[in-house]
Amino acid sequence: MKIVSTVEELRHTLPTNQTVGFVPTMGYLHEGHMSLVENARRENDFVVMSIFVNPTQFGPNEDLDRYPRDFERDEKLAREAGVDLLFYPTTETMYPLDMARVTVRQGADVLCGASRPGHFDGVLTIVSKLFNLVQPTRAYFGLKDAQQVALIEGYVRDYFVPVDIRRCPIIREETGLAKSSRNVYLSDVEKEEASQIFKALTVAREALESGHKIEEVKRQLTERLDGIPNSQIDYVELVDYPTLGVASSDSNEILIAVAVQFERARLIDNVIWKKG
Amino acid sequence: MKIVSTVEELRHTLPTNQTVGFVPTMGYLHEGHMSLVENARRENDFVVMSIFVNPTQFGPNEDLDRYPRDFERDEKLAREAGVDLLFYPTTETMYPLDMARVTVRQGADVLCGASRPGHFDGVLTIVSKLFNLVQPTRAYFGLKDAQQVALIEGYVRDYFVPVDIRRCPIIREETGLAKSSRNVYLSDVEKEEASQIFKALTVAREALESGHKIEEVKRQLTERLDGIPNSQIDYVELVDYPTLGVASSDSNEILIAVAVQFERARLIDNVIWKKG
Repeated sequence: MKIVSTVEELRHTLPTNQTVGFVPTMGYLHEGHMSLVENARRENDFVVMSIFVNPTQFGPNEDLDRYPRDFERDEKLAREAGVDLLFYPTTETMYPLDMARVTVRQGADVLCGASRPGHFDGVLTIVSKLFNLVQPTRAYFGLKDAQQVALIEGYVRDYFVPVDIRRCPIIREETGLAKSSRNVYLSDVEKEEASQIFKALTVAREALESGHKIEEVKRQLTERLDGIPNSQIDYVELVDYPTLGVASSDSNEILIAVAVQFERARLIDNVIWKKG
Repeated sequence: MKIVSTVEELRHTLPTNQTVGFVPTMGYLHEGHMSLVENARRENDFVVMSIFVNPTQFGPNEDLDRYPRDFERDEKLAREAGVDLLFYPTTETMYPLDMARVTVRQGADVLCGASRPGHFDGVLTIVSKLFNLVQPTRAYFGLKDAQQVALIEGYVRDYFVPVDIRRCPIIREETGLAKSSRNVYLSDVEKEEASQIFKALTVAREALESGHKIEEVKRQLTERLDGIPNSQIDYVELVDYPTLGVASSDSNEILIAVAVQFERARLIDNVIWKKG
């Protein structure tokens, strides 16, 4: 595995005439990332991973400074997973001028976007830059960030970016807790409590499947999450997917998404219900 | 010359393994555009021109509806100039979702940007989309829109867009009047009067060359333009180029740019002074 940090080295190392699978990450890798690499390896000749904690997607009161970082560990995991090229740029490299940003006009004001203004502008800005640099055949994103996946799919369609976006399923602990770099902030007791989030989402999906009304499912899910100790609901939403518009009985896919705040970590999780 | 209007046709018609020169236009072609094509032909195997009157770069009170259009004439001129592929999309084709825009953070609030808020956001948005679609080796822009050229160069650098931006000189009538699609709005008398703009700019450049102070050159240029009948100055600016920041005695290039409003047309023109 080659490690590069400058644009020149990256361009020089990228293969020509091979399919390239790209896994953009913010590092502190876990099994979720590893499963993205696995998918990328299966479908491409060459796998590129980026590790970059992108400052423009953090709000002024968010956890940019204390976002967990461990490059040595990440490097080892990436190598073991079969990454061919690891791109590890500085902020100065990724923002040489920062003279323009991508700004989301639709779908950023719900779910995580509602409480994180500008977050998805930062995500699309960095994804756009990375796609231009890496020029991948396919790029891999986990459905844990379902809103992010939907907005990146929208951006790629709207801007004719020549890349195939691959949605990958959420990877979970045995307890059902979705893997996340931020899980390190949870105590053992909180981890146990947080595992109830997925159980509640599963019950909600089954309720939709049985024909319960959307509002009723949302009410029951909210009640269940309210019962988890030491935590506070940030949002509970059922939205049409991937448009992120209002879910209705016409929706072919409904995203059931929640954010729950624990003492030191805000956790997000979701399931997607599919018609028939 | 092939003419295509859909993304699928365009992708199908673009050559592989040939250098592609790209000339994006809003149509109503004149000798300025033709000289861009000429440069593109000289430096590339294949020349693509786009004709698209981009709505997002017009303000609500601007001339989108009455912007001059004549596709039959444009088609003939493009064919004669040696364009290989003419891309003539609809607004629906270029904005399938319009779910995100490129937003300029630096350099859009001076010169034309000051009186046209959002104009350069629209320009960078459509240029970004067109570059993704056409994937040109080189793209050709006229220095008549010097601020546009500077912002596109900035965007390409900031977003690592793999394209070489080629600056092309302003093409003028024998009188010195810069060629522009909007010149059709001028009466013969106004055309004569408008030709004084270039003369005034040339005097200003000579004054800089002779070591006159920037503020003094600006004052004299303003006075000269004020003397042109039936017109009103929109702006007179001397800025560092291509940063568009404040010009100083340290500047290696200074853009002397003006906008003058006639009855039915707002004209822009500029010259660039280069340090000895």
